[in-house]
Amino acid sequence: MRKTQTPAARKATIDDVAALAKVSIKTVSRVFNSEPNVRPTTRERVLAAAKELDYRPNLSARRLAAKRAFVIGLLYDNPQSDYIIAIQEGSLEICRQYGYQLLIHPCSDVGANLVDEVLSLKHQGIVDGFLLSQPISENEVLLGALTEQGIPHVRISQRAIGDAPRVAVDDEQAALRLTEHLIELGHHRIGFVMGHPDHGSSHDRYDGYVKAMRGAGLPIDASWVEQGTYNFESGYAAARRLLTLSPRPTAIFACNDHMAMGVLVAAHERRLEIPADLSVCGFDDTPMAHYAWPPLTTSRQPIKQVALIATEVLLKRIQGGSEGDDHFLLHSELVRRDSTGPCPEGP
Amino acid sequence: MRKTQTPAARKATIDDVAALAKVSIKTVSRVFNSEPNVRPTTRERVLAAAKELDYRPNLSARRLAAKRAFVIGLLYDNPQSDYIIAIQEGSLEICRQYGYQLLIHPCSDVGANLVDEVLSLKHQGIVDGFLLSQPISENEVLLGALTEQGIPHVRISQRAIGDAPRVAVDDEQAALRLTEHLIELGHHRIGFVMGHPDHGSSHDRYDGYVKAMRGAGLPIDASWVEQGTYNFESGYAAARRLLTLSPRPTAIFACNDHMAMGVLVAAHERRLEIPADLSVCGFDDTPMAHYAWPPLTTSRQPIKQVALIATEVLLKRIQGGSEGDDHFLLHSELVRRDSTGPCPEGP
Repeated sequence: MRKTQTPAARKATIDDVAALAKVSIKTVSRVFNSEPNVRPTTRERVLAAAKELDYRPNLSARRLAAKRAFVIGLLYDNPQSDYIIAIQEGSLEICRQYGYQLLIHPCSDVGANLVDEVLSLKHQGIVDGFLLSQPISENEVLLGALTEQGIPHVRISQRAIGDAPRVAVDDEQAALRLTEHLIELGHHRIGFVMGHPDHGSSHDRYDGYVKAMRGAGLPIDASWVEQGTYNFESGYAAARRLLTLSPRPTAIFACNDHMAMGVLVAAHERRLEIPADLSVCGFDDTPMAHYAWPPLTTSRQPIKQVALIATEVLLKRIQGGSEGDDHFLLHSELVRRDSTGPCPEGP
Repeated sequence: MRKTQTPAARKATIDDVAALAKVSIKTVSRVFNSEPNVRPTTRERVLAAAKELDYRPNLSARRLAAKRAFVIGLLYDNPQSDYIIAIQEGSLEICRQYGYQLLIHPCSDVGANLVDEVLSLKHQGIVDGFLLSQPISENEVLLGALTEQGIPHVRISQRAIGDAPRVAVDDEQAALRLTEHLIELGHHRIGFVMGHPDHGSSHDRYDGYVKAMRGAGLPIDASWVEQGTYNFESGYAAARRLLTLSPRPTAIFACNDHMAMGVLVAAHERRLEIPADLSVCGFDDTPMAHYAWPPLTTSRQPIKQVALIATEVLLKRIQGGSEGDDHFLLHSELVRRDSTGPCPEGP
């Protein structure tokens, strides 16, 4: 690749870059140290000038001097692909803006070595801090160790544990809204499939369902509530039980889209028309909700947005720019598709 | 957390660990330097002894001394979640065995800064080498730069470009087998939805389809072959065109499961019974294939296995243990489910 050469083909310096980009040397330095508060247009101009001149700052030296890795670690346990990819995408978008890299470290929430394993990533200088997703973000032993050692971390969780910043979606409110949607369609017997018992989100969604039913003065029969584990198979098994009840629920609310896909298959096997005979809704709005037959009514979670905010809060902490309690609670959006319709028994 | 203490509560040394684990000091050192050829049982014993004694080797020093990051980078562009999560899982499994970490770096195959961006990860000492997935693994400019600078890398690709090791699935063979399955069921008019034109895999799968049709002496009408892009919408749009042909294809082979889900929805909208009126097959065996209605016949790709092998080859190269041309071609497995059946027009 040919590059524009400085006069005597000598190695370009930071002065050359500053001159070409028409900014101060300090600004060039700030761009290459990934410091915040550099205007995007300025940053672009500096990077373009550096590229033009083939300027290569000594970046290993930068890492040693800053005593920072310029890498953050994402911790999670046994994820749904769509969920964790959305988290990764959001986090990478911010990392890129700040000149950081993302290291992924799935680990077992119940693993005996969890704490040692995580701390050693920081002690080895591999990462500067951690982004924790559920259920790792609710592991009190790990959270205690991170806090004690002053290691920057941000939790994706709605549960208040310790002082670390947390970012989450208001699951209860979203589930309340979905349940109200079913009630507005005339449904009274609404089955509910819970998610994994170790995830706070499952309990919050259940609370939203209960609140909506009570708000409408509707009773909840214990036989309508089934325990699932957030996977397809558990939704399928739960629906097979719910669909043999007499009288049968006229709607089923599954706590995530994977389980709702299982409900759809169980209903198709019994030759039930959806939504004419049974309304079904999921939660999350994964791509799958859109591909289902019929397409699923669900709650669109702003997962990527959660990761964007959590990563920005983390990077500001790592760079010493913020120490306050930052807690964010984001809202979901009800997405109506063809899997829910009027109650077959009328309003 | 309470730990067993050495006699005078002094800090444990490498000698203490060697004594407790009943191995030589050299072996302890090899375990902590993630060198290969330590027996798993020995490794476990050393780690257990280190844990028992709360021994903490100076791992930052280890990284500086070894001039290695003990991190590898995974490069990819715009992935399907299930595919990239399987790659990440396979890669992490081997990384864990070797004491390495995985950094993820999605990047644009057509981005102007791709080469600078990737090389800088190595120049900054953030990673020791790269695992490249499609289509980045077929970017000749990037491959040329990595080779020129002697940066270890392994390609997930079937295309021979340069000398770097490559690992792939035999897509042509798998597509040939799926097409033969449809022909055995009596289908002669078989529609085909291609994947993204920039991915070699799409062309290989098409070649397999052509080979099977020719092998059975069947003609291929140009109108039966539609261009897709590997996403749901492109499969849906292609099927809407294919299903208006007269005579209509009796089977549609979509080049991945996402597009096959789109074919199913287009068929459901036309009230076609599957497989009675139309057989549909996908490719990849993503979880979605199993959740579809009806569940999809597809080809189960050993994606995780590809990542396991590619990562092991990469780590051996980084550790200087191998320099030969390592090329691996893995086989897929035909998975018959309910979306394919006998041709409605008879054999």
